[in-house]
Amino acid sequence: MSTHTNLQTFLQDRKPLVEDKLYSYMENVDAPSVLVESMKYSLKAGGKRLRPLLVLATLHSFGKNEELGLPVACAIEMIHTYSLIHDDLPSMDDDDFRRGKPTNHKVYGEAMAILAGDALLTYSFEVMESLLEKGVTPSKVLMLVKELTKAAGPSGMVGGQVADMEGEGAQLLLEDLEYIHRNKTGKLLGYSIYAGAVLADASDDQLSMLSEFSDHLGLAFQIRDDILDIEGEAEKIGKPVGSDTQNEKVTYPALLTMEGAKEKLNHHIEEAKKLLKSLPLESDLLAQLCDLIAKRDH
Amino acid sequence: MSTHTNLQTFLQDRKPLVEDKLYSYMENVDAPSVLVESMKYSLKAGGKRLRPLLVLATLHSFGKNEELGLPVACAIEMIHTYSLIHDDLPSMDDDDFRRGKPTNHKVYGEAMAILAGDALLTYSFEVMESLLEKGVTPSKVLMLVKELTKAAGPSGMVGGQVADMEGEGAQLLLEDLEYIHRNKTGKLLGYSIYAGAVLADASDDQLSMLSEFSDHLGLAFQIRDDILDIEGEAEKIGKPVGSDTQNEKVTYPALLTMEGAKEKLNHHIEEAKKLLKSLPLESDLLAQLCDLIAKRDH
Repeated sequence: MSTHTNLQTFLQDRKPLVEDKLYSYMENVDAPSVLVESMKYSLKAGGKRLRPLLVLATLHSFGKNEELGLPVACAIEMIHTYSLIHDDLPSMDDDDFRRGKPTNHKVYGEAMAILAGDALLTYSFEVMESLLEKGVTPSKVLMLVKELTKAAGPSGMVGGQVADMEGEGAQLLLEDLEYIHRNKTGKLLGYSIYAGAVLADASDDQLSMLSEFSDHLGLAFQIRDDILDIEGEAEKIGKPVGSDTQNEKVTYPALLTMEGAKEKLNHHIEEAKKLLKSLPLESDLLAQLCDLIAKRDH
Repeated sequence: MSTHTNLQTFLQDRKPLVEDKLYSYMENVDAPSVLVESMKYSLKAGGKRLRPLLVLATLHSFGKNEELGLPVACAIEMIHTYSLIHDDLPSMDDDDFRRGKPTNHKVYGEAMAILAGDALLTYSFEVMESLLEKGVTPSKVLMLVKELTKAAGPSGMVGGQVADMEGEGAQLLLEDLEYIHRNKTGKLLGYSIYAGAVLADASDDQLSMLSEFSDHLGLAFQIRDDILDIEGEAEKIGKPVGSDTQNEKVTYPALLTMEGAKEKLNHHIEEAKKLLKSLPLESDLLAQLCDLIAKRDH
């Protein structure tokens, strides 16, 4: 029995909440001003704020107070932002633009961009500590910190980035591609939902179902990304169309044909929605999110 | 009333303990093999293991079980190692050798070196969680994590690195130089002692005295480093003599003359030793450490 909250309204409404909190955490940073500026530059460069909003949407779906999720939401966004700064570096993807704006190293130089990334990553763990002020028990905070390091570190996002790099120009199988995406983008997306659910006191069974849900959602997200790289509009996606092909990245359409990729996308979306039906959620926000990801144009 | 443990014997004896534990943590990392190799390469590149040994020496000085400090000791060494990998990058100090061996990016390339650093930093926070298995309370673990993020992040080590970079080729005052060193190297050294003392259940007064002690020790360490860069032997210090001058780094001898720098070094060592006398320590390890730092040749 689920009440209706419009997802677009929810996202529009909560985005400023996340961003205000994100910027307010930056006010507490006692560091050389150019470093703080460089960190803020990338944090303020916009984006969908998908990961933090997933934390809030999950809490909302369980009928819990979303405020509780803001520290985790901000920590995740800082980690996501650091990963983009480092990914864009000349020795990595060598991107000059991100979301239509010059990348961090184009503005602050390579050394500062590396350090701004390092600083955001480290600071994100300090931000996690403010969960304590919201009454979350120390044990739960530590569990959330531990899962965050797994999702973001060598066995998660960083490992996925390495596999992605190693895979460039190579012949990959579907399982290699899925390994890359599960780790490079999937685990941090999945963690966002996990963290929301843990804060909402979800049971182990529910967490395990949500983990399957996240897996489908993450893969769907990435397939849609690959499709957009071919069919999207440069202006909306904020980077040139066809940049994956140019960077010799293996994509779903390349492996499965465009039709096969779209079928796979639908499969994951349907599976994700099926799982949601078994959960005691008080709103259909996550189901609407599935549709949004399937159809997003940026 | 302090018993005598010879510091050199202590360091030689405990170094393999720290290194074994450090490498054993790496066995648990589930990640692409080239990433794990790159992380291990720099972790195994040697070094004095000063920071982890400080954790153990502090616990020993309070008459406590040193084993308790191994997770923090390893986490700190991982963070120290990541900072060296990033510092050596072409866009930073552009060093080809570290401790007589090719730097990480010379072996694995720039992109992998950046990611190995990111992975070590993230993983260090996962390592901190194993304090729980040693019976440390969740609240204490969280306090230790929080102080680690402060020592290593923008308000500590990363901030110091930025200030150091910004200061290259500029006219610096003594207070600017001290800001750089307090943050770039001092805070992580100080944290090592702090963590050992917290695990040894030191009182707030004792922690505050030890913090002053660490401040003197950290500055002394850096002054000695600057002196070695001019008077040391390349073979022993593992890098070319005079590289600071070549990199236009402001040093203590440049600011204070060599004689002034040596006086300053002695001053900090004396102050540090004075503070130790007020502490209920069961061995004079930390006092011997002061002498070691004052006279070290690498």
